Amino acid sequence: MNEEKKILGILGGMGPLATADLYKKIVLLTQADNDNAHIHTIIDSDTGIADRTAAILSGGRDPLPEMLAARDRLIRAGAQCLIMPCNTAHYFLDALKKDCPVPFLNMLDAAASTSARQFPGKKAVILATRGTLATGLYSRALENAGIPFLEPSEEEKDVLTYLIYDIVKASRPLSEGTPLFIKLLRGLKDRGADYFILGCTELPILAMEVPDEGPFIDPTAELARAAIRFCGYEVQEREIH
Amino acid sequence: MNEEKKILGILGGMGPLATADLYKKIVLLTQADNDNAHIHTIIDSDTGIADRTAAILSGGRDPLPEMLAARDRLIRAGAQCLIMPCNTAHYFLDALKKDCPVPFLNMLDAAASTSARQFPGKKAVILATRGTLATGLYSRALENAGIPFLEPSEEEKDVLTYLIYDIVKASRPLSEGTPLFIKLLRGLKDRGADYFILGCTELPILAMEVPDEGPFIDPTAELARAAIRFCGYEVQEREIH
Repeated sequence: MNEEKKILGILGGMGPLATADLYKKIVLLTQADNDNAHIHTIIDSDTGIADRTAAILSGGRDPLPEMLAARDRLIRAGAQCLIMPCNTAHYFLDALKKDCPVPFLNMLDAAASTSARQFPGKKAVILATRGTLATGLYSRALENAGIPFLEPSEEEKDVLTYLIYDIVKASRPLSEGTPLFIKLLRGLKDRGADYFILGCTELPILAMEVPDEGPFIDPTAELARAAIRFCGYEVQEREIH
Repeated sequence: MNEEKKILGILGGMGPLATADLYKKIVLLTQADNDNAHIHTIIDSDTGIADRTAAILSGGRDPLPEMLAARDRLIRAGAQCLIMPCNTAHYFLDALKKDCPVPFLNMLDAAASTSARQFPGKKAVILATRGTLATGLYSRALENAGIPFLEPSEEEKDVLTYLIYDIVKASRPLSEGTPLFIKLLRGLKDRGADYFILGCTELPILAMEVPDEGPFIDPTAELARAAIRFCGYEVQEREIH
């Protein structure tokens, strides 16, 4: 193992299925032909972390103390670079980076940077929870990258909330959500959207079911690619599903 | 969160894709309708652990010191129950359980116990690496559970080695391996096999591609179910894929 290879830490559990999805994407996207050529990865999937959206929007319990504790457990276990597969949690990223002795990569910046390169001048839509949208985190990341975008209407936000919380996070069969998801995507295209940023880590899981309704930017996959490169490994070019 | 809920530790990296697969199965098989209802899980996917088959069969580097170090990192991080998604690694289970302050569940026993219940009196085949087969670990687990079984021939072991190492662990497209896998399974049925124990954690990933060629017992899923129960959660009855 090369001296420059880094141990990756994943601050997970937000949610657990998205954590499993990110780790699988890291493995599939790493250029490696045997176990030992993969990234040493430590995952703390602390499912006790308070809901981020509730904390941001409605005065719910603050998740930061639990996130800091998980961050520190990962660092103590040896993590040399951190990531987290939860868009809304990036609201707390500045606080998590404070006094953090290792780099903490930003999933939204990874998504914006790929969007700008892949769809220059085209109009994005941010598909996300109300919590993420309310933080303005994605708007800022896209503005910084010079990307034109539109946001879902209140009614469309209701549909997204239902799909994220009552289908994916609730481990319901995805087929119960796909007709509504397709209707949402087609409506947004009618309003001028050229492509969709899957700005909640539960959404790529749903989007895999309707690949023809894109194009999609999957921030989970873009974060995986950024982390692979940062840890000193090569990205394998491939379709993942 | 109930006082009796346990934090689960996964000694992973053997291999990384199997680790992602196990964690996904744990999430999908846990009865939970929101993030907080899932198991707090810590995963150390140490891809630097020496190859288990090489160590057992051909005097390769001993993986035990690295496995013990990963075990201890998990316990320090808070794990209260341990599992590992690698059949061959169970050769080292007794050594890992020695002086281990927390319970370490056995994947092979979980698979044998489900096999006996689900296919009473029927003949199993153990599909596994040469390393796992040479240890006799599965034979003993099945004998203890009173299960009749047959083992693959030398030629069939060559095919299994190719599928495990050169397709799944090498992250090759699974479709490159499925025709050979189907031929292997049908040949074994001709020799009297009633069902297949997927005794290498890479094989369920391949078996998902050919669901009609079973029935299969997936020790990864059985280990997930055993761990969910042991940690104080309920198993959700569902098909996973």
